[in-house]
Amino acid sequence: MKDEGMIVVLSGFSGAGKGTIMKHLLQEHPGEFHLSISATTRKKRQGEEDGREYFFKTREEFDDMIRQHQLLEYATFNGNSYGTPRDYVEKLVEEGKDVLLEIEIQGALQVKKLYPSALLLFVMTPTADDLKDRLVGRGTETQEVIAQRLAISAKESSYMPGYDYLVVNDEIDRSVALVYSIIRCEHYRTARNIETIKQMQKELRKFERR
Amino acid sequence: MKDEGMIVVLSGFSGAGKGTIMKHLLQEHPGEFHLSISATTRKKRQGEEDGREYFFKTREEFDDMIRQHQLLEYATFNGNSYGTPRDYVEKLVEEGKDVLLEIEIQGALQVKKLYPSALLLFVMTPTADDLKDRLVGRGTETQEVIAQRLAISAKESSYMPGYDYLVVNDEIDRSVALVYSIIRCEHYRTARNIETIKQMQKELRKFERR
Repeated sequence: MKDEGMIVVLSGFSGAGKGTIMKHLLQEHPGEFHLSISATTRKKRQGEEDGREYFFKTREEFDDMIRQHQLLEYATFNGNSYGTPRDYVEKLVEEGKDVLLEIEIQGALQVKKLYPSALLLFVMTPTADDLKDRLVGRGTETQEVIAQRLAISAKESSYMPGYDYLVVNDEIDRSVALVYSIIRCEHYRTARNIETIKQMQKELRKFERR
Repeated sequence: MKDEGMIVVLSGFSGAGKGTIMKHLLQEHPGEFHLSISATTRKKRQGEEDGREYFFKTREEFDDMIRQHQLLEYATFNGNSYGTPRDYVEKLVEEGKDVLLEIEIQGALQVKKLYPSALLLFVMTPTADDLKDRLVGRGTETQEVIAQRLAISAKESSYMPGYDYLVVNDEIDRSVALVYSIIRCEHYRTARNIETIKQMQKELRKFERR
């Protein structure tokens, strides 16, 4: 009973742990999910391969993709643009596969607008102070950058109600199990099984009485 | 993270196994769910206790409950009326408890209309022939009654899209685990955690920049 694949968006506050959840999810369930590969204008780094880490594009190619609606969502950070190729994702979903996207909040809402059936998961910490502690604990960001990120999270929190589920990431194993369970259960949603329903209705017709 | 309890309705085709799923669910997770106790005009049988199997009511009392909107849903079978007392269910939900209702399809839709946040699960067999086989296999019904039930199922199948989830009951242990998992995951739905979201938004305000 699996009519179609799903677009699963893992998003949430910077520092809440969505990247870690994603990594564990792919490791613990090999072959079960497909990770969307982004297109980017960023220069290829040593060891990276086109079509593995990213689809590397020139600025011109990337802008063409935007104009031709070939990106589900896109955003620009530090002068480099990143986007989710539509063809790649749609092909996988049609094949019945679940495609995972780890993207920023603005991008997540763009995806939901295009695909109302996309599953949006919002990863958060138990408290706001936990979020600060984790950003500080990483030890990779300056105080100024941390303050910026927290200010962005404060703004972004207004978009939380637009998501389907909240994942309070207090303990990584629990969070990974929860995300896995949510994706699995969502496949049984009536709205995702219209073909199964139609088939049963058709089969039952022979028992009708006039 | 559990803002409130849920009304969980287990419903579906007669013979699909909703009663068995319900029984296993309660046995395997003692104390985790509360079973709604119906009011009925049916005569108390030997060994039954008021408030345990049913709340036993006179016809007059039952009709009063209907008039005073004290029933979430009700239906009449073979001259006996059965209904779900509103107070009892609402009190448990307010206390944060999940209340299970095993009711017919018409009643389930009445509940969803009153409580859009109620979780409606539709239990079905893999195929229509499986449904017939199970009714025949019980050996308790006449051919005529089985034909009637199948005809009712054929009609009722048009209401399937009004449910939240489909549970294809092919293997009882798998179905019980799925129902349990669905209920657990639903608690993380954004729409069921508005207070958690408000709390996080409030906490994050201190990081805002003007």
